[in-house]
Amino acid sequence: MVISAPSGGGKSVLRTEIFKKDKRFKFSVTCTTRKKRKGEVQGRDYHFVSDKKFKKLISDKKLLEWAKVHGNLYGTPIKSVRDILKENKIPLMTIDVNGARSVKKYFPDAVTVFILSPSLKILVKRLKLRKESEENIAIRLETAKKEIKEAFFYEYFVVNGKLEKAVENIIKIADCESLKMWRNRDAILKFKKEF
Amino acid sequence: MVISAPSGGGKSVLRTEIFKKDKRFKFSVTCTTRKKRKGEVQGRDYHFVSDKKFKKLISDKKLLEWAKVHGNLYGTPIKSVRDILKENKIPLMTIDVNGARSVKKYFPDAVTVFILSPSLKILVKRLKLRKESEENIAIRLETAKKEIKEAFFYEYFVVNGKLEKAVENIIKIADCESLKMWRNRDAILKFKKEF
Repeated sequence: MVISAPSGGGKSVLRTEIFKKDKRFKFSVTCTTRKKRKGEVQGRDYHFVSDKKFKKLISDKKLLEWAKVHGNLYGTPIKSVRDILKENKIPLMTIDVNGARSVKKYFPDAVTVFILSPSLKILVKRLKLRKESEENIAIRLETAKKEIKEAFFYEYFVVNGKLEKAVENIIKIADCESLKMWRNRDAILKFKKEF
Repeated sequence: MVISAPSGGGKSVLRTEIFKKDKRFKFSVTCTTRKKRKGEVQGRDYHFVSDKKFKKLISDKKLLEWAKVHGNLYGTPIKSVRDILKENKIPLMTIDVNGARSVKKYFPDAVTVFILSPSLKILVKRLKLRKESEENIAIRLETAKKEIKEAFFYEYFVVNGKLEKAVENIIKIADCESLKMWRNRDAILKFKKEF
């Protein structure tokens, strides 16, 4: 499952709550060259790596997708996704629209969800609460504007108003996707054979 | 929402429970020429009509779809579906695969769900519990066999094992369908305008 949201959309809080509520999901940890923020843990929130190491991952084709966001590099190691799938769990990726496109090419049965705060006003408020500088807020809003233009690429749309509700909706999406007919071919074929 | 299930799949019990649990759903009452079964109520379970009346409905193009099943005619009046949509409710139709195809042509945004009992054994058991004659059971199983061949036409697959669970899944499907991006164009366009 791929989740994208403009910065300030509340991705990381949402993510934490999803993992708390539903043990089917596992976080596919992203590599990044950006500096660790307060409270973030190496290997849990991100694999914090050097620019050199990141470039090596790219040239070794170890990344499913990567992108430069606000001057920092972010990338999803293919292995971390495959490992989670092998465990029969749902890899949860929080990446941007270019990343989402790459994932969809590599894993066509991936499910893509676009998260948005209820209004622009609330988005700005959340960025300010995070104590981002005025300049950073401006950059992030510019990015948000671009990202929203790509919203129609995604299959699902979840408003991140009340956190509880948004988490519930994402879990429901996972439930329903497992009810999709094309994901249940084997069950149907088994029933047919019984006749 | 269109629900199809081989006879004995438990369609009518399921339907009753859905309406009890979730007030968004409204039953789109089907016309039929078949005899009323014990406990069925005219206008609630079906519009029981004569052969002559049914043929008039067909020639007047009042039916969204109709089919002959086990010697009886069944049809969905277009008006009953339109009326429910006007109320902003979800019309729930329990029809066969041909009906489902007609509905999908007329209402491309309809959601189609195929219901199946957990096994052939349980399907037979349910038919016997309904005190159908041996001959009727044989006819219905033959129909079931044909219907299962068409299962892949449907978007969703729900196993009707535990009733509670099946009802919950159908309600979840309605919830998730309302989260589909293409059903939320207006919300996205509104957000874009705020920039």
